[in-house]
Amino acid sequence: VNFSVQILGSNSASFAYGRHHTSQVVNHNDNLYLVDCGEGTQIRMAKFKIRHSRINHIFISHLHGDHYLGLMGLLSTMHLQGRKHDLHVFGPSGLEDIITLQLKLSDSVLNYQIHFHAIMPEQEGVIFEDPQLEVEAICMEHRVPCHGFIFREKPKKRRLMRNKIEGEVSGELIFMLKQGQDVVTQDGRIIESSLVTEDPGAQRTYVYCADTRYTETHLSKFKEADLLYHEATFLSDMAERAGETYHSTAADAATLASKAQVKNLMIGHFSSRYKTLELFLAEARQHFPKTVLALEGETFQIGSASPALVVEHVSQDVSH
Amino acid sequence: VNFSVQILGSNSASFAYGRHHTSQVVNHNDNLYLVDCGEGTQIRMAKFKIRHSRINHIFISHLHGDHYLGLMGLLSTMHLQGRKHDLHVFGPSGLEDIITLQLKLSDSVLNYQIHFHAIMPEQEGVIFEDPQLEVEAICMEHRVPCHGFIFREKPKKRRLMRNKIEGEVSGELIFMLKQGQDVVTQDGRIIESSLVTEDPGAQRTYVYCADTRYTETHLSKFKEADLLYHEATFLSDMAERAGETYHSTAADAATLASKAQVKNLMIGHFSSRYKTLELFLAEARQHFPKTVLALEGETFQIGSASPALVVEHVSQDVSH
Repeated sequence: VNFSVQILGSNSASFAYGRHHTSQVVNHNDNLYLVDCGEGTQIRMAKFKIRHSRINHIFISHLHGDHYLGLMGLLSTMHLQGRKHDLHVFGPSGLEDIITLQLKLSDSVLNYQIHFHAIMPEQEGVIFEDPQLEVEAICMEHRVPCHGFIFREKPKKRRLMRNKIEGEVSGELIFMLKQGQDVVTQDGRIIESSLVTEDPGAQRTYVYCADTRYTETHLSKFKEADLLYHEATFLSDMAERAGETYHSTAADAATLASKAQVKNLMIGHFSSRYKTLELFLAEARQHFPKTVLALEGETFQIGSASPALVVEHVSQDVSH
Repeated sequence: VNFSVQILGSNSASFAYGRHHTSQVVNHNDNLYLVDCGEGTQIRMAKFKIRHSRINHIFISHLHGDHYLGLMGLLSTMHLQGRKHDLHVFGPSGLEDIITLQLKLSDSVLNYQIHFHAIMPEQEGVIFEDPQLEVEAICMEHRVPCHGFIFREKPKKRRLMRNKIEGEVSGELIFMLKQGQDVVTQDGRIIESSLVTEDPGAQRTYVYCADTRYTETHLSKFKEADLLYHEATFLSDMAERAGETYHSTAADAATLASKAQVKNLMIGHFSSRYKTLELFLAEARQHFPKTVLALEGETFQIGSASPALVVEHVSQDVSH
């Protein structure tokens, strides 16, 4: 099962040096989840050939413009392109007001239904789940209510190896075998689960930490992360400014990754004051070597099967 | 005095084929006026090296997203870049509500003052003027209240030729000479205005017609246009669809240009269904030869001094 994240933008506040506002697409088993939606997200989706119609869930961390100003345009384009199926939008309660006001003033009725799921300022816990994945909201420490999102695979059944099974076996027994139980067939044969099924692989987790100052509140949650995305707006020589503005430094992000022993760290949300990003990587790697930069257009695999791929991206140009 | 317009975007509704949403920068004597502000306008301003700080007046035609969704991000970036001086925003009354709500929810107070000037649905007439220029709003025929804007130079004084004047002449007499009056100096000399001043050039006019279906209501206003920008969302084989959606065809725009005998016509707001734009140019030129396409990044001079420059742009690639 594919589990990856593609970066559409990773700059903070203002567009600068070709870097756009925050947006990411999480792909789990070909279901796409849009995480934040800064201005121009729909344009970068077109560039990276991501079809809007495949997105059914959008998660907005907070109501600073660089994280949501692209949403209204995306919703409108979905409508113009003939979308009929429902869309779920998770975010601060004010988001629905903003969208509703803009639809009203443009005298627009969308051809599809939007379900707004308000996340309250202090709310934490699972806000979405389907049979394969759940999304948990965690509170960031930012100037306005802001949430991070944990994308966590649900416990998986063992994978059946069809060619290892002889004769007729009922659906019910197959179900039990996938759950790890040995079974006895109607004609009296014993089938051991471990011989006809294989390990489904570990549950994988992607943690998205939106804008926040340094906090160890969620270290225990981070521990499970195959990939932790954490904002790193500044370098550590601007630690004071980071604190004042409720943002983090590259060192902050890497320190948390190190303390939680995550498998991989990705940093982003770079301040517009930095022309190039090499120093972010260098600073973070002093604390946590397995760090990569959230570079636009890059796709990072999530999970134990592919830490190499994540690290591989580091060799790319980081000076654009 | 420079009088020109640069195109930042000229596509309708959705981003497509590299074409962005509507936005233009009118430059009159190095004062910049932003006209409409679709999503991503600030990004294209960065690309074309247009400094935000030089923009003091923004005109929004109507509240369809492709004409204003870039405004909130631009206002925010102006703030982040340290703007202190006032900004004037002209547009439908709902625009202030949208901006105010978004500022409130992001807990933001801008470091500069925005003056919102609401344009009421049926309102027409001069909405802005300074000593050199005035802007007149005219009503478009669109699905929601929508205005076009006429940028009209004020009557100019004659230009003084300093080297033609001998001896002392008071400021008061200079003022009269520039107004075309002959004067008598204190020492009894007669100075003829026509000998010491030169023609200031004609008053020039740029007419911006935002989204509208075909209407001859404003033909008399168009007559003065050195350059008429008119939307041309469709080709004429989709005239019915144009009418239903309150848009125009290339033939519509060119027919109006021909009837009003404008000096030059620029068409834009192309539908996303068209990959290339050659047919727009061909269709319009059947009715009005001096037509150009509103291509992103291009700057068009306004006024009799430079019709050649306008036409020159036509030779550029129109297939992007």
